[in-house]
Amino acid sequence: MTDKETDLNERVRADFTRQKVMELIGARMSLIEPGVCEIEITAREDLTQQNGFMHAGIVTTVLDSACGYAAFSLMPAGSGVLSVEFKVNLLAPAKGEKIRVHAEVKRAGRTLTVCSADAWAVENGESKICATMLATMIRVDQDGMKR
Amino acid sequence: MTDKETDLNERVRADFTRQKVMELIGARMSLIEPGVCEIEITAREDLTQQNGFMHAGIVTTVLDSACGYAAFSLMPAGSGVLSVEFKVNLLAPAKGEKIRVHAEVKRAGRTLTVCSADAWAVENGESKICATMLATMIRVDQDGMKR
Amino acid sequence: MTDKETDLNERVRADFTRQKVMELIGARMSLIEPGVCEIEITAREDLTQQNGFMHAGIVTTVLDSACGYAAFSLMPAGSGVLSVEFKVNLLAPAKGEKIRVHAEVKRAGRTLTVCSADAWAVENGESKICATMLATMIRVDQDGMKR
Amino acid sequence: MTDKETDLNERVRADFTRQKVMELIGARMSLIEPGVCEIEITAREDLTQQNGFMHAGIVTTVLDSACGYAAFSLMPAGSGVLSVEFKVNLLAPAKGEKIRVHAEVKRAGRTLTVCSADAWAVENGESKICATMLATMIRVDQDGMKR
Repeated sequence: MTDKETDLNERVRADFTRQKVMELIGARMSLIEPGVCEIEITAREDLTQQNGFMHAGIVTTVLDSACGYAAFSLMPAGSGVLSVEFKVNLLAPAKGEKIRVHAEVKRAGRTLTVCSADAWAVENGESKICATMLATMIRVDQDGMKR
Repeated sequence: MTDKETDLNERVRADFTRQKVMELIGARMSLIEPGVCEIEITAREDLTQQNGFMHAGIVTTVLDSACGYAAFSLMPAGSGVLSVEFKVNLLAPAKGEKIRVHAEVKRAGRTLTVCSADAWAVENGESKICATMLATMIRVDQDGMKR
Repeated sequence: MTDKETDLNERVRADFTRQKVMELIGARMSLIEPGVCEIEITAREDLTQQNGFMHAGIVTTVLDSACGYAAFSLMPAGSGVLSVEFKVNLLAPAKGEKIRVHAEVKRAGRTLTVCSADAWAVENGESKICATMLATMIRVDQDGMKR
Repeated sequence: MTDKETDLNERVRADFTRQKVMELIGARMSLIEPGVCEIEITAREDLTQQNGFMHAGIVTTVLDSACGYAAFSLMPAGSGVLSVEFKVNLLAPAKGEKIRVHAEVKRAGRTLTVCSADAWAVENGESKICATMLATMIRVDQDGMKR
């Protein structure tokens, strides 16, 4: 990795560690590149909805964080990021061994960044898309205040 | 309560108990009436994002379940419900002692039901709206299969 | 009307007139108050989709403008407004003699304003909700440039 | 073209012609394939918002129809299609000579189909993405009634 890549990697992973909920639900960042972020989460009984699938809100939690870090990766050092809004379409039950999320920046603006992300349910080695997000992120101060 | 109200109450609360993630995040249903559902969640450090606010995905988890049960409350016995899609606008940081969600049915169709829900951050006894959801729910079989 | 109300009224209506598409589709502003805007549109054959209902995109055009002016009405003089994003749920066919839209500000921020709006189909004197929007508007310069 | 392609082409174009609003705004279908639809629209002064850009609602009208026909193209003969909901993010001003929309099916279900679409503003021969849609379509009877 170049110095720049190492910087990005460290900056993003430090921030990810501060998201305590990622630890609670067992999510881990598997890839971070400029404009792209991937996060994985293992299926667990305590993350389920009434039918035993992963709750749409937990899938959304992962999609949202992945979009946030994809946006964050393109922002200048010293920035913070907050979600303005997101929409999620649930395409299939989130069932299987794990959920894998891939997020990327669709358009990066000075203040607002639009990202899209897909969630894949991995079952017996096969991946099936189970949800998709279209989100707006806003660049803020590091303490999370909008400017 | 009338018999009908007792039935609704029992049917919804039994289903809520099957959502294991509600226990993980400490969410509890505070109100269920035909077409209306309220859920509360206490702020906890292990539910936070990088600035110490409740993660937007956890707020969404509560908003989504509240919309689901508001829709479910108007469906015939033997129905199940799944989220088709939802959009969330984050209006203010989800900070304070607890988040309180109020969801109601906007239009109930035979198959699809549209719900709206607001989340309020309660801090020092004051409530401030922090998020709002507009969602589509689908009536399914009890095992969560779309018909 | 007070001077302030007259100012708002004139400022908004002047801007509305600049939206040439409003004239094309026959939309007229029926109410403007701080944080609230109503627009009506008469059903016409040249606004229809394949079943003879008003096209969802035309209903959206009216919903979007109503949200924009509701947001604009709370902004300081010299501001412009652009749509960041909106989501529309179509609840029933947009049929009847006219569509009436009511929009209001849900939360006004310094830069971003979130609005909600409902569209009602008026048929034989009866109103039925046919669509609902949840939208984010951004304050910009008068020439439509984001700051 | 094979017989099947000719059938699809004729079925979709006949339906498109019934969308009278497409004629009003000057939209034309430039491509239809299984699961994919493209529509173009030339910029005109009577389609503008207050800054002279194409109104977001008109861009949405084209995005919505393109998503609808992308979904429709995969449905059995005798089906109709209606929009359940859509979300649009406006990424840049819709300015230039024309707007070009590309829509494709993200997941086709028995009843519900999820589509995504991008709109490109073409100015001086250069294309720039100006909007993106994530939409849910529902299969209905040919007269537009939900089943």
